[in-house]
Amino acid sequence: MAETMTLNPDRLFPSDPTMRALARRLHAEVKDLPIVSPHGHTDPAWYADNINFPNPAELFIIPDHYVFRMLHSQGISHEALGIPSVDGREVERDPRKIWRLFAENFHLYRGTPCRAWLEHVFVKVFGMTERLCADNADQAYDHIDAQLRTDDFKVRALFERFNIEVISTTDSPLDDLRHHRAVLDSGWRGRVVPAFRPDLVADPEFEGFARNMAELGELTGESVSAWSGYLRALAQRREYFKTLGCTSTDHGYPTARTANLDKSACQALLDKALKGICTPEEAEIFRGQMLTEMVRMSRDDGLVVQIHPGSFRNHNQQLFKGFGRDKGADIPVRTEYVSALKPLLDEFGNDPKLTVILFTLDESVYSRELAPLAGHYPLLKLGPAWWFHDSPEGMRRHRLALVETAGFSNTVGFNDDTRAFLSIPARHDVARRVDCAFLAELVATHRLDEDEAVQVAKDLAYTLAKQSYQL
Amino acid sequence: MAETMTLNPDRLFPSDPTMRALARRLHAEVKDLPIVSPHGHTDPAWYADNINFPNPAELFIIPDHYVFRMLHSQGISHEALGIPSVDGREVERDPRKIWRLFAENFHLYRGTPCRAWLEHVFVKVFGMTERLCADNADQAYDHIDAQLRTDDFKVRALFERFNIEVISTTDSPLDDLRHHRAVLDSGWRGRVVPAFRPDLVADPEFEGFARNMAELGELTGESVSAWSGYLRALAQRREYFKTLGCTSTDHGYPTARTANLDKSACQALLDKALKGICTPEEAEIFRGQMLTEMVRMSRDDGLVVQIHPGSFRNHNQQLFKGFGRDKGADIPVRTEYVSALKPLLDEFGNDPKLTVILFTLDESVYSRELAPLAGHYPLLKLGPAWWFHDSPEGMRRHRLALVETAGFSNTVGFNDDTRAFLSIPARHDVARRVDCAFLAELVATHRLDEDEAVQVAKDLAYTLAKQSYQL
Amino acid sequence: MAETMTLNPDRLFPSDPTMRALARRLHAEVKDLPIVSPHGHTDPAWYADNINFPNPAELFIIPDHYVFRMLHSQGISHEALGIPSVDGREVERDPRKIWRLFAENFHLYRGTPCRAWLEHVFVKVFGMTERLCADNADQAYDHIDAQLRTDDFKVRALFERFNIEVISTTDSPLDDLRHHRAVLDSGWRGRVVPAFRPDLVADPEFEGFARNMAELGELTGESVSAWSGYLRALAQRREYFKTLGCTSTDHGYPTARTANLDKSACQALLDKALKGICTPEEAEIFRGQMLTEMVRMSRDDGLVVQIHPGSFRNHNQQLFKGFGRDKGADIPVRTEYVSALKPLLDEFGNDPKLTVILFTLDESVYSRELAPLAGHYPLLKLGPAWWFHDSPEGMRRHRLALVETAGFSNTVGFNDDTRAFLSIPARHDVARRVDCAFLAELVATHRLDEDEAVQVAKDLAYTLAKQSYQL
Repeated sequence: MAETMTLNPDRLFPSDPTMRALARRLHAEVKDLPIVSPHGHTDPAWYADNINFPNPAELFIIPDHYVFRMLHSQGISHEALGIPSVDGREVERDPRKIWRLFAENFHLYRGTPCRAWLEHVFVKVFGMTERLCADNADQAYDHIDAQLRTDDFKVRALFERFNIEVISTTDSPLDDLRHHRAVLDSGWRGRVVPAFRPDLVADPEFEGFARNMAELGELTGESVSAWSGYLRALAQRREYFKTLGCTSTDHGYPTARTANLDKSACQALLDKALKGICTPEEAEIFRGQMLTEMVRMSRDDGLVVQIHPGSFRNHNQQLFKGFGRDKGADIPVRTEYVSALKPLLDEFGNDPKLTVILFTLDESVYSRELAPLAGHYPLLKLGPAWWFHDSPEGMRRHRLALVETAGFSNTVGFNDDTRAFLSIPARHDVARRVDCAFLAELVATHRLDEDEAVQVAKDLAYTLAKQSYQL
Repeated sequence: MAETMTLNPDRLFPSDPTMRALARRLHAEVKDLPIVSPHGHTDPAWYADNINFPNPAELFIIPDHYVFRMLHSQGISHEALGIPSVDGREVERDPRKIWRLFAENFHLYRGTPCRAWLEHVFVKVFGMTERLCADNADQAYDHIDAQLRTDDFKVRALFERFNIEVISTTDSPLDDLRHHRAVLDSGWRGRVVPAFRPDLVADPEFEGFARNMAELGELTGESVSAWSGYLRALAQRREYFKTLGCTSTDHGYPTARTANLDKSACQALLDKALKGICTPEEAEIFRGQMLTEMVRMSRDDGLVVQIHPGSFRNHNQQLFKGFGRDKGADIPVRTEYVSALKPLLDEFGNDPKLTVILFTLDESVYSRELAPLAGHYPLLKLGPAWWFHDSPEGMRRHRLALVETAGFSNTVGFNDDTRAFLSIPARHDVARRVDCAFLAELVATHRLDEDEAVQVAKDLAYTLAKQSYQL
Repeated sequence: MAETMTLNPDRLFPSDPTMRALARRLHAEVKDLPIVSPHGHTDPAWYADNINFPNPAELFIIPDHYVFRMLHSQGISHEALGIPSVDGREVERDPRKIWRLFAENFHLYRGTPCRAWLEHVFVKVFGMTERLCADNADQAYDHIDAQLRTDDFKVRALFERFNIEVISTTDSPLDDLRHHRAVLDSGWRGRVVPAFRPDLVADPEFEGFARNMAELGELTGESVSAWSGYLRALAQRREYFKTLGCTSTDHGYPTARTANLDKSACQALLDKALKGICTPEEAEIFRGQMLTEMVRMSRDDGLVVQIHPGSFRNHNQQLFKGFGRDKGADIPVRTEYVSALKPLLDEFGNDPKLTVILFTLDESVYSRELAPLAGHYPLLKLGPAWWFHDSPEGMRRHRLALVETAGFSNTVGFNDDTRAFLSIPARHDVARRVDCAFLAELVATHRLDEDEAVQVAKDLAYTLAKQSYQL
């Protein structure tokens, strides 16, 4: 028998009545603020074409590595979950069967943010009232599926219903951004901006680097085999991205290492990179040099630079062969910033007009490295609790470890960082609630006055994201 | 004047009344569940011979490095505590004097789990009512000592009184397990199973490795100087252990490093190991290869593999010379899993029929490495807060850091990991209370429904240990 | 319009009423205990000359890198803040303008310990009643400035008003300690003792090492180019420091590495150090050897040794060139103790008459390395949460991570470690409150009895500092 499912209005607020009352008051001030989503992975084509999302399995399970990694960890195969293979193996094609498997195992998400996000969507977006389980799987499937086909569930309608003020996608510098253009041309008032993610032409170890570089050359008319031409080509693409609203770049490298070499050394690295003969160390330096170049270009075009280091990508060799990239097998590794960022900081660290936003998957650096760095250098700001740490306890640890040294003003508000469009309000809701709970504790323990906490809550929910990303 | 000593029924529950009430209700559901103790170091001879434990000093102080390390840190010598020496030096022989020294310094344990375990035993097992101090030391000694001599305090009676369903010891592959056999043959219904801990024939740096290997060869009739014979010998011993109820292996290595070499490379390593000429790096690879071999054997015999890495053993050179191994001078070091486990994971990571249980003494890897790994790989499960972290705050940090990413189902319940038999109920009691307090907070903050919390509490207290260890 | 500013009597106590009531009772027992300040950076000349402090900008902003680092991070230049330059550039000279800039940006300190310290001083020392902001900046300036000129605000009067029992400064071995002598000779009853910080003659990479060594030789009449003479010279200076009340040495090295070489190897290192040709590795060994030598000397003179490792000093190259050392650009790095301290521990680890106090900026070592080491070795004690971690949450993490393994008795109470004299009571107040809150939770969850918590609170607030530092 299924249990009731509701969203308690006090969820994620402290149990202590004094703090709970404070958290409620703070939350009342921020809950209706528009969503600013400065970093994420939704598909611009959705907005251009104003799509309806597909069936529940293709919406919630198949594309979401947060969801299927837990199922995989408990021995449920990618095949049974209908994850598309890259090696031709057969996978389940019946979305209802996939959904049932998910529903039967919904208990696995107990205590995880996935559970909170999913239930938020089930209740708020689809009006469901029973906790998902094997018994109600079919009924839930039909209930969701029917709504997904309606006009009210087209992406633009949801965008408006979700009160999204602006959302950033993440895009290849080789992309012509036709979908962003189409959104602009359509007259729809929703703001969808690209972000410039040049890894495929800025990391010599990226698959197809030489081919990508050739394409970059063609696209820009620059001779990308010359260091200066290569930089001009990237600057040109950044300019193009800016015309469609882009305000930021993003870099997903293994480490935070930066470099600041002279041009001849850069040319020598580029020569090797194009020949595919960089050693791992040289590839690392190349990437580090590119971080510095990206910031240098920001002096001209003003883009904000995001650094997302520390993930060992595609750790699961067998799954990677069978199912390709991004299948939940990216595992964080130890990361270092103090030495790694020094070449960049020596050059640009004290420039208050530039912004580099740092993320980490290694919580041990929060209080040791990131807060002291961002609490000192004008260049640096700290991104929110990221990925595995985008969770109530992860966010709480992030605030506890960073605020005392870096303050609130050296942080940038929340990023949902998702391709799961329907979960965006859920994720912002969690972040706002956790921040209000955190602030309630500061007020209840007389570390902050309530009028200030209101101001900070608004900053964290809305203002800092807009300002930091210049949106 | 001595103070009253009681065990408050609400101990370790949150102070907030809402959470405390929830914790009470959850705890009521689990407090009487039988104890499953899948990993520990009690002596099988105790159960075979149904011993009475010795006097209070020999019971509580001399064999317990948790207890005497704190005294040592405050300048109380091992000699004065009667710790047996290995270099012939005289040590105190009067157990009452040793006990008095302990009682006078009982305040040193304030805030430590030792204090909680000891008081639990004093109150629940011995019915004491005064906090131990210099003034009541003799009285306490006599009170305990008298009871220890009675039939009600024989180990089998206590085993039953403690409601232990099954307990695992930790045993050498060279052991004939005569005590386990004797227990089985005795007709007593207590279940005492061995665990297969092959370090002394699987670590080339273990004292007496070559001698141990020779003994392994004799015992099994295999030619252990050949890689295949060596593996057959170990497989044979595992089979023997299984006949006496063994369901797991255990490995206490400096690191989590694994290897997966071809047979000729393995043979070359074995040759060096037998000659005692492995470099530290080669010894490390040898151990790593053996982890992979242990898992490979599990495909046939189904044993669960436990990896306990990251302790710098016998760090105190002077004490090691004077008093030998396991004298409280094992110190945790930084540990890495993401690269270390890759060879093993590449081979067996996706096999849902195999289980490797990971432990750590390095809490910085909880959220960064262990939760993402176990939340993805079917092979991996996470052991409880271990050793120095087997404490209320240690357990709480463990849950807070792991559950959001790995869920509850990728963890294995509690291990008491102790040779202090009388403390086993105390340790399980602490774990159950801390878990109920943790779950109470999830319910009070509306992250989990109470019916689910009851289910999870039972899983953590009982079911997961039975299932994960196949007990 | 300015808001009211008060110091709530329950600040930093838990919100839960049961715990709050406990925290209040505990705090009542410790709030009036004298301040023992065993480690800090106030200027002994202040006490010798019984100075009045200068204007608000020169008192609160210009010398305090905790304060101006936050302003710098938000793009407010050192020039505008009147930080003295070392390269001749002009900086703001009007203290009122500097103060206004600070007041306008006072909101940046929300959630930081600086905010708590500053408000404590504003309210308790200066009797202010409005939260600082742009609107009341001038009024606040005048209010503070007027009081600073009075006799009641001379340093000795404040010292007495603050109920300081003893304070330690930090001093060069080349210092003649004339100010300490002057204080003693003055007949004033305030106790101001030096600490022996020999980095400038114990670290071959210190600026002017050879010159400093020559001065050491002249001062002591020893031939410091011979290892034995060098050690005698240092021992002689330690003896001199002792005559003026010194009880401790202090060492601010990049790492905790120690060494214990034979004399010929030491001499060879010294030869290179004096020639300025040590490799970085040799310099590191030299420093590590000196830690061991410092402890060896303590067998004779009884000084307590403090090790403060893990700060990357003067990380900001541009600021260092413009403004010199100690400008908020010291950034913590990962630190290791288990291997690093082994040479020292092998020699002196078990000597209960010696004391080495360890500090860290790397919280990941608290539970992994420091608590197990200090909970075992008689030599070692653990310093309080240091520098960036000298904050309510930093202190709480410190207790949570250390107490369960190391107990309270292996810690040393609080250090304010400051040159901001007026903030000393504020800092001790925060520490006492956080400790009372921590103890209240132990009592409320029945891990400690209230009578014991009172004892521990007094130990942490007063007794441990006096005992550990032999003050």
